[in-house]
Amino acid sequence: SFSRGVKTVTMIPGDGIGPEISAAVMKIFEAAKAPITWEERNVTAIKGPGGRWMIPPDAKESMDRSKIGLKGPLKTPIAAGHPSMNLLLRKTFDLYANVRPCVSIEGYKTPYTDVNLVTIRENTEGEYSGIEHMIVDGVVQSIKLITENASRRIAEYAFEYARNNKRTSVTAVHKANIMRMSDGLFLRKCREVAENYKDIKFTEMYLDTVCLNMVQDPTQFDVLVMPNLYGDILSDLCAGLIGGLGVTPSGNIGANGVAIFESVHGTAPDIAGMDLANPTALLLSAVMMLRHMGLHDHADKIQTACFDTIRDKKVLTKDLGGSAKCSEFTAEICRRVQDLD
Amino acid sequence: SFSRGVKTVTMIPGDGIGPEISAAVMKIFEAAKAPITWEERNVTAIKGPGGRWMIPPDAKESMDRSKIGLKGPLKTPIAAGHPSMNLLLRKTFDLYANVRPCVSIEGYKTPYTDVNLVTIRENTEGEYSGIEHMIVDGVVQSIKLITENASRRIAEYAFEYARNNKRTSVTAVHKANIMRMSDGLFLRKCREVAENYKDIKFTEMYLDTVCLNMVQDPTQFDVLVMPNLYGDILSDLCAGLIGGLGVTPSGNIGANGVAIFESVHGTAPDIAGMDLANPTALLLSAVMMLRHMGLHDHADKIQTACFDTIRDKKVLTKDLGGSAKCSEFTAEICRRVQDLD
Ligand SMILES: CC(C)[C@H](C(=O)O)[C@@H](O)C(=O)O
Ligand SMILES: CC(C)[C@H](C(=O)O)[C@@H](O)C(=O)O
Repeated sequence: SFSRGVKTVTMIPGDGIGPEISAAVMKIFEAAKAPITWEERNVTAIKGPGGRWMIPPDAKESMDRSKIGLKGPLKTPIAAGHPSMNLLLRKTFDLYANVRPCVSIEGYKTPYTDVNLVTIRENTEGEYSGIEHMIVDGVVQSIKLITENASRRIAEYAFEYARNNKRTSVTAVHKANIMRMSDGLFLRKCREVAENYKDIKFTEMYLDTVCLNMVQDPTQFDVLVMPNLYGDILSDLCAGLIGGLGVTPSGNIGANGVAIFESVHGTAPDIAGMDLANPTALLLSAVMMLRHMGLHDHADKIQTACFDTIRDKKVLTKDLGGSAKCSEFTAEICRRVQDLD
Repeated sequence: SFSRGVKTVTMIPGDGIGPEISAAVMKIFEAAKAPITWEERNVTAIKGPGGRWMIPPDAKESMDRSKIGLKGPLKTPIAAGHPSMNLLLRKTFDLYANVRPCVSIEGYKTPYTDVNLVTIRENTEGEYSGIEHMIVDGVVQSIKLITENASRRIAEYAFEYARNNKRTSVTAVHKANIMRMSDGLFLRKCREVAENYKDIKFTEMYLDTVCLNMVQDPTQFDVLVMPNLYGDILSDLCAGLIGGLGVTPSGNIGANGVAIFESVHGTAPDIAGMDLANPTALLLSAVMMLRHMGLHDHADKIQTACFDTIRDKKVLTKDLGGSAKCSEFTAEICRRVQDLD
């Protein structure tokens, strides 16, 4: 990057409402004078040598340089054999930790208040190994792969995260009563890592019990760490508690600072291009990104402006219960960002 | 059985609070003049020929004759290699459908009202295959097994259930975007079976999306059908919505009328023998059993007495927010059952 201290971020606007909400985020970043330059890249899976699916070279090259990506929604491939771009991105950059903070948003009413937890999902293996066979006609097996290394790595990530974010407990979520060897290995690694973090309380709980307790009283949870599929499920469940995917940020974290932050809602093709989309999830993901980059002041400012706008209830997009356009909601956040200066 | 029309049921009281709540159910059945005689059997896993775990012969023999069982909670085995009795029972009698109606209970406040759905869980395969290997040191695989036959069978059960219980829709819950072959096979069978039930609306939904929608608005769901592990998770989640496992009934259904109904809460060793337990989950499971046996009048009477007692709020066990003993709560239900005559 040219100017001192200005950092480059790879922006993958995505499909459907992706371009609109990306534009909204970039506007708000400009208003906040965030020291970021964007490199926009489109991603569609292409077939590389040997027939392996890969992301386009210019997107790969940008991410390799910038190390940090922000990504809008990508449409799920329909063609059989076509890979999910979301999964391909996680794989290409070995983004092993999927981090989703779920925090109740003041002014946005759901049946729950005071939710304040983080799901940390192993993002590279488990049920997502992609290894499946037909044994005989009518009999199929899918392989869930759990390794010591990936389990230790995600457990360490969870405890480090807890410590660095002033959180006090980590719960390992598992079904080691059923998958004694695979979830057993995952759980053992969590226990071992917990030994090195005596300042953080460690508990273990069956996935089914977590789900039951979660809907009865989510405030009992803090940081939760779990294998891939359980994280897929639990992160969506928890998003539901605070208002859904439209307001929930997400980050995919790899080694050496590499990370892609993304909104995990759909592409909403029915409202694409109509200036009706809600950019909150992508904006809050971008706020996570700023913190990841150490830009806490900018992160605080944007987050405050966003939450103030929602709490104030005057300028809200339709899905948030208002009638404002995406551009009006965005302008309101920009105004508040500038007022905070 | 001796007297005309009186049917035998195998009663497995279980551990911890099991004997107390079983006694409560038998008392209420007596008050309701339900034409049932009980054969009490204890079950602990024993090692049969060839070292295979089996349930004790006298319990097996009773179930083979009666075909119908009612079961309290069993403690989870601690010794490694010791099987879960719950799983062993499902396997021994090929109880392929796990059925859990989740219906809001009037007078028992939770964040949700008007929940009225049923989870139907494939109970014999999937992630519960028990097949696991260590590939190399630190790398473990668990095998999820999905067969055409078991998938078709559970799909057919779900649609038959919907039709026979005046329900209007069946949702297949899956992750066929990730486990394309295994969940793909399950989903294909659901679609095929749906073709034969044009009177029932069929939808498909990703498990993560179901969880998200479930906590936002459970009233949108009716009958849900899914592979084993997803059912484990979702049935507990749904139980949480209506008040937890203490008030949620469950049935495990096999072919030719064979079935075991059970409360799925724990053994609560801390209050065992203290006359403090809540028999509701086992009682409502017994009501499911009566319906399964065609004894609808007795089922209605007992269910009404139980729900009236809870709605009335005067005689409740501690977990339900009252201070009554198990025996007092039971006596109150008996009184109301007799009043209904
Ligand atoms: C889009 C899909 C492949 C993905 C997943 O299953 O992981 C999504 O549900 C998520 O949670 O990011
Ligand atoms: C006790 C345990 C083995 C069981 C399961 O995992 O199926 C339980 O959670 C259930 O839902 O009946």
